[in-house]
Amino acid sequence: MNRTDLTELIAQRRISSGLTWQELADAIDRPVVWTTAALLGQHPIPRPEAEILVEKLGLDVGVIPLLGTVPVRGTDRDVAMSDPTIYRLYEALAVYGPALKELIHENFGDGIMSAINFSIDIDKKTHPNGDRVVITLDGKFLPYDWVSAD
Amino acid sequence: MNRTDLTELIAQRRISSGLTWQELADAIDRPVVWTTAALLGQHPIPRPEAEILVEKLGLDVGVIPLLGTVPVRGTDRDVAMSDPTIYRLYEALAVYGPALKELIHENFGDGIMSAINFSIDIDKKTHPNGDRVVITLDGKFLPYDWVSAD
Amino acid sequence: MNRTDLTELIAQRRISSGLTWQELADAIDRPVVWTTAALLGQHPIPRPEAEILVEKLGLDVGVIPLLGTVPVRGTDRDVAMSDPTIYRLYEALAVYGPALKELIHENFGDGIMSAINFSIDIDKKTHPNGDRVVITLDGKFLPYDWVSAD
Amino acid sequence: MNRTDLTELIAQRRISSGLTWQELADAIDRPVVWTTAALLGQHPIPRPEAEILVEKLGLDVGVIPLLGTVPVRGTDRDVAMSDPTIYRLYEALAVYGPALKELIHENFGDGIMSAINFSIDIDKKTHPNGDRVVITLDGKFLPYDWVSAD
Amino acid sequence: MNRTDLTELIAQRRISSGLTWQELADAIDRPVVWTTAALLGQHPIPRPEAEILVEKLGLDVGVIPLLGTVPVRGTDRDVAMSDPTIYRLYEALAVYGPALKELIHENFGDGIMSAINFSIDIDKKTHPNGDRVVITLDGKFLPYDWVSAD
Amino acid sequence: MNRTDLTELIAQRRISSGLTWQELADAIDRPVVWTTAALLGQHPIPRPEAEILVEKLGLDVGVIPLLGTVPVRGTDRDVAMSDPTIYRLYEALAVYGPALKELIHENFGDGIMSAINFSIDIDKKTHPNGDRVVITLDGKFLPYDWVSAD
Amino acid sequence: MNRTDLTELIAQRRISSGLTWQELADAIDRPVVWTTAALLGQHPIPRPEAEILVEKLGLDVGVIPLLGTVPVRGTDRDVAMSDPTIYRLYEALAVYGPALKELIHENFGDGIMSAINFSIDIDKKTHPNGDRVVITLDGKFLPYDWVSAD
Amino acid sequence: MNRTDLTELIAQRRISSGLTWQELADAIDRPVVWTTAALLGQHPIPRPEAEILVEKLGLDVGVIPLLGTVPVRGTDRDVAMSDPTIYRLYEALAVYGPALKELIHENFGDGIMSAINFSIDIDKKTHPNGDRVVITLDGKFLPYDWVSAD
Amino acid sequence: MNRTDLTELIAQRRISSGLTWQELADAIDRPVVWTTAALLGQHPIPRPEAEILVEKLGLDVGVIPLLGTVPVRGTDRDVAMSDPTIYRLYEALAVYGPALKELIHENFGDGIMSAINFSIDIDKKTHPNGDRVVITLDGKFLPYDWVSAD
Amino acid sequence: MNRTDLTELIAQRRISSGLTWQELADAIDRPVVWTTAALLGQHPIPRPEAEILVEKLGLDVGVIPLLGTVPVRGTDRDVAMSDPTIYRLYEALAVYGPALKELIHENFGDGIMSAINFSIDIDKKTHPNGDRVVITLDGKFLPYDWVSAD
Repeated sequence: MNRTDLTELIAQRRISSGLTWQELADAIDRPVVWTTAALLGQHPIPRPEAEILVEKLGLDVGVIPLLGTVPVRGTDRDVAMSDPTIYRLYEALAVYGPALKELIHENFGDGIMSAINFSIDIDKKTHPNGDRVVITLDGKFLPYDWVSAD
Repeated sequence: MNRTDLTELIAQRRISSGLTWQELADAIDRPVVWTTAALLGQHPIPRPEAEILVEKLGLDVGVIPLLGTVPVRGTDRDVAMSDPTIYRLYEALAVYGPALKELIHENFGDGIMSAINFSIDIDKKTHPNGDRVVITLDGKFLPYDWVSAD
Repeated sequence: MNRTDLTELIAQRRISSGLTWQELADAIDRPVVWTTAALLGQHPIPRPEAEILVEKLGLDVGVIPLLGTVPVRGTDRDVAMSDPTIYRLYEALAVYGPALKELIHENFGDGIMSAINFSIDIDKKTHPNGDRVVITLDGKFLPYDWVSAD
Repeated sequence: MNRTDLTELIAQRRISSGLTWQELADAIDRPVVWTTAALLGQHPIPRPEAEILVEKLGLDVGVIPLLGTVPVRGTDRDVAMSDPTIYRLYEALAVYGPALKELIHENFGDGIMSAINFSIDIDKKTHPNGDRVVITLDGKFLPYDWVSAD
Repeated sequence: MNRTDLTELIAQRRISSGLTWQELADAIDRPVVWTTAALLGQHPIPRPEAEILVEKLGLDVGVIPLLGTVPVRGTDRDVAMSDPTIYRLYEALAVYGPALKELIHENFGDGIMSAINFSIDIDKKTHPNGDRVVITLDGKFLPYDWVSAD
Repeated sequence: MNRTDLTELIAQRRISSGLTWQELADAIDRPVVWTTAALLGQHPIPRPEAEILVEKLGLDVGVIPLLGTVPVRGTDRDVAMSDPTIYRLYEALAVYGPALKELIHENFGDGIMSAINFSIDIDKKTHPNGDRVVITLDGKFLPYDWVSAD
Repeated sequence: MNRTDLTELIAQRRISSGLTWQELADAIDRPVVWTTAALLGQHPIPRPEAEILVEKLGLDVGVIPLLGTVPVRGTDRDVAMSDPTIYRLYEALAVYGPALKELIHENFGDGIMSAINFSIDIDKKTHPNGDRVVITLDGKFLPYDWVSAD
Repeated sequence: MNRTDLTELIAQRRISSGLTWQELADAIDRPVVWTTAALLGQHPIPRPEAEILVEKLGLDVGVIPLLGTVPVRGTDRDVAMSDPTIYRLYEALAVYGPALKELIHENFGDGIMSAINFSIDIDKKTHPNGDRVVITLDGKFLPYDWVSAD
Repeated sequence: MNRTDLTELIAQRRISSGLTWQELADAIDRPVVWTTAALLGQHPIPRPEAEILVEKLGLDVGVIPLLGTVPVRGTDRDVAMSDPTIYRLYEALAVYGPALKELIHENFGDGIMSAINFSIDIDKKTHPNGDRVVITLDGKFLPYDWVSAD
Repeated sequence: MNRTDLTELIAQRRISSGLTWQELADAIDRPVVWTTAALLGQHPIPRPEAEILVEKLGLDVGVIPLLGTVPVRGTDRDVAMSDPTIYRLYEALAVYGPALKELIHENFGDGIMSAINFSIDIDKKTHPNGDRVVITLDGKFLPYDWVSAD
């Protein structure tokens, strides 16, 4: 079994168990986006958290070392983009990505928002015209910096 | 001249004028991400705002109707993704996109975050280990709803 | 078993059972395009309808939670477009898509036809020169609207 | 000047003239979707209609033969799909295309909806929760039929 | 078993049985190109013909309903084009396709050669310099015709 | 001026001159598909024929050497396939290509239909249900043959 | 088992048997490039040779008809090109392909080097600075020739 | 003017001058494939040879430094592959590439045929059944060798 | 003029001036890889350095603001990869990239080598068997770290 | 079992055994990048080293011949590039690749850095602002050299 197989097994076990992602996150006391992404194969899961999750989801303890290994991250773009819920996120980047680049440079200088020293959160907020999804990307600014060892 | 040509001309005029995107946004009293995206060809610009911007950037008033037309939106993906500053945003979706989909469904039900009834903001926040870029996507939740006219 | 496997199983069971899509839709009292799309893996199917369909198609009741989960929507474009029946729909968009965009903007302003608050129907209509397929897309107009929570 | 150049020129002249697509369609007494598509380079325009349109848009009469020639039809898919307004149409096909195929076969037999003996219309319909875009595709059913000359 | 699996099984049974495509076509009294294409998964096969073919190829009668279902047509382009025998057909279109378009329009007007009301035949003809493959595509001309139901 | 530029110029001159492809073919006493393809940039045109065509189309005699050079053949696939008239030819190959391969092998043995020792013709044939386009591909069979010089 | 499966099985049996490609070619008295390509699934293998090879490789005699069938030729380009040894061949074409085209035309006229009436050989030649790989492509020149049956 | 522009200019000057590639190669006493490739933009041309070629082709001496610069090598694959003369070379690799890889390894060990310490030649050889194109690739074998500086 | 145009102009001026990249780097006292990349459009060039370079290359001082703007970084992958000199770098990643990932994780933990807090150097080193190119990538290790503002 | 299957099995055995890549490299006294790449399927592994590794990883000795065979090298680009750790290496090439090409030519002349006579190393170096990953590519310079056998 590789990590991809394990991710699919986790998805099935979660559905049949009826557990929510929030309940799984609460069980290991970690942020819910991190926990969901990790269970979907995007982060290594340390042994203590893995032990709890394996027990919750009725998995074999033999998968704990595999859960603890750094995975090959990422999502097949074609699959991901065909789903309307995920597509809207890509659409926002298609429309606003170059503007964000300009404003990162205007406000911070030449560099990037790190996606490694980074967190992401999702909230439900109310509005008179209907609930809103609010997603916050929060990454350290890294200036282009020409540095060498020594 | 089409909108693509005009966008390139605007980019050049802004650089040679030394104006910031923020100054242009302030001049028309609109949010800075909206203004930047609009000047980069992603939104129609209403006549009153267009008149101010055309004057600021030293453009011909003849371009005002073109600025006011709904553009073909979007960004060439290959070009956009080759830039490290923009790429980090796509990387965040590649790692966290499926998790966000799961959590939208868990918290709101079957549906999407609208990218039309939507705003996006960028902030600079301080942190002991260095400034952080905080990008907020804020879209109305739209439930899948099978509706017909009449 | 994941949703893709289940969709293929449903397709096979429907063929061997001899049931039509219309009969399945009638059994759950839902529109036939919605029902067909849902059974092809594009919509979650609520438990009461799932129970009826599972019984009709001779499936195991254990698949009901999987049918009720929000799926990753979409169709592999290359596969879909190689089929002449589906291709004609894409051809219509290739020829008329930009015109529809222009007319949505001319008649409604800047915005989109929602594909979420949306229904689609197919009818057979007679014509002296032969029967006609009439497909109706019916979606709420969503104006571009820059809104934030709170 | 080729047809692509001419289409861009028409687009610019229409914007600067302030004419709507509906006014242009009315001037030649043709359906508005047909007229818009034809002016966007998707149909040959017969001489009488071309003479009127050329005059309305202030074009040189020398372009009339070019307008009358059968064009290379279609739209660059990447460009078209990056625009959110057009994308929603492709999204509807990604979600419902295979279902439409199944139902064409169930209701008509093996064959296709013609995109040649075909018309398409767009309407604005009211609904208590907001105006709706209603697009109707109407094509002759063509059964698979193995026929030879003679 | 889906149609793709069944097509592969048919291919293997035909090879091990030593039957030619022509013999299979003769057995059901259908044109040989149609029969070959149908057995390769491109056409539904009516029950009487399916019963004969299933018996000839030693297949289970349970596959007859699957053979009778309208398939998802088409061929993976990359696979097909890598084969030199098939590639020459694509090469002919790459070199002569635009010329054929021009001549269809010159001789018939604006429209297409139907690939649905269509037959295709292959012959061996002798020539002093060696046998020749003669492939005849024969499709009804369909003029672009803007028609609606009612 | 390269051959691509020259091909576009020829296309424009032909439209403004009102000459048909058939008239151009008759003027040089060559088959009409060959002539059309050659003028669309797919074959070198020998000097005598080039002199006639250049005069007919009002081109500069300086282009005769360029017309006589072997061109880089082929058509941009994406452009060609977006046009419905050309697409139907590709669709026929997608549906019947593998069957044609099988039957070439069954009737001729291992090898190909040459697209070089090759001609192609298009005819209009009548049929009670409407005129038919008949396209004939006629190529020498070339058996796979492992031969070396000397 | 299809030809792809069989090719993989042959590859594994050859490795475990320790036989070289040259030994297999010698066993059937055929050129080594032809033999290797044929065993890699690119040529049908006549029964006498197939019987010898099947025995050498310890395969079941039931695969002989499959080995004798004309295969779908070709190699997945992405896979092939990722291997540095194969890539260098593609690189040579990328650098010298257009020059070879020019020189074929200059020396032979308009036409191609056949890849069907064709052989290819590989040799090891010595050179003071190190052994050299010498690959010889040897194909019949086929002039573009517009010929019809009859 | 960049190298691409210059290459196109060279191509046009050669056609109008009526010079053959062989004559140009003879003028600078270099192999004809090298000379043709170099003039098509694939090799830097040293000053003495460049001076002769510039004079022969009637180019401005100002282009000599540009001819002498190492170019970005390679050919647009889609363009190159659409031409039947070039395509046959790629077809040979698709059919025989993996076999060549196997035989390089069998005869030389793990490594590659260099495309840098490399020459390529084209010959016309006679054969009773027609002239043959013989292309010889001749590259140094480079064994995989794990070496470091110092 | 945009940055792409300016980069091409710089390339041409450098060739005609005969200046080496090293001389340009020395003139502004910056590392040579940084300087070359910056002049090829990959880094903003601060005003003092830009003034020197503009003077050296005989450019108009009006381009200095454009040189100082953060560019859209990156290289067209297809163009870059067709060049054998650049391709070898990609080949090294194709062969060793996954191994480097494994060893970064084994030696540093979960995270990345920054390409922003990063420098790259190229050296010529001697070796008994021939000079060697030594390229050093030197980037800060960034551990995956889930951090938020505040 | 083919090499791809074997590579996946090795990956799983290494994780469950808890062995590091460094320990495996030490066991066979080979460089760690070479060893890791070889175990990931990029190099043949000689029998003595294979015997040790097979024993360490608890594999069947029957896989030793397969480990010793020259593999089809390379990595699926889409998979590799979706991982942020690997992507940063590609990003460095996108930004600095053309500059490296220029400097190889400036310092060595026309040619390439070999990726075959090549080694690659990774080090951890300290820096006041945090540990740095230092990757060294070290390849023999190969000048373009037109050489033939004999």
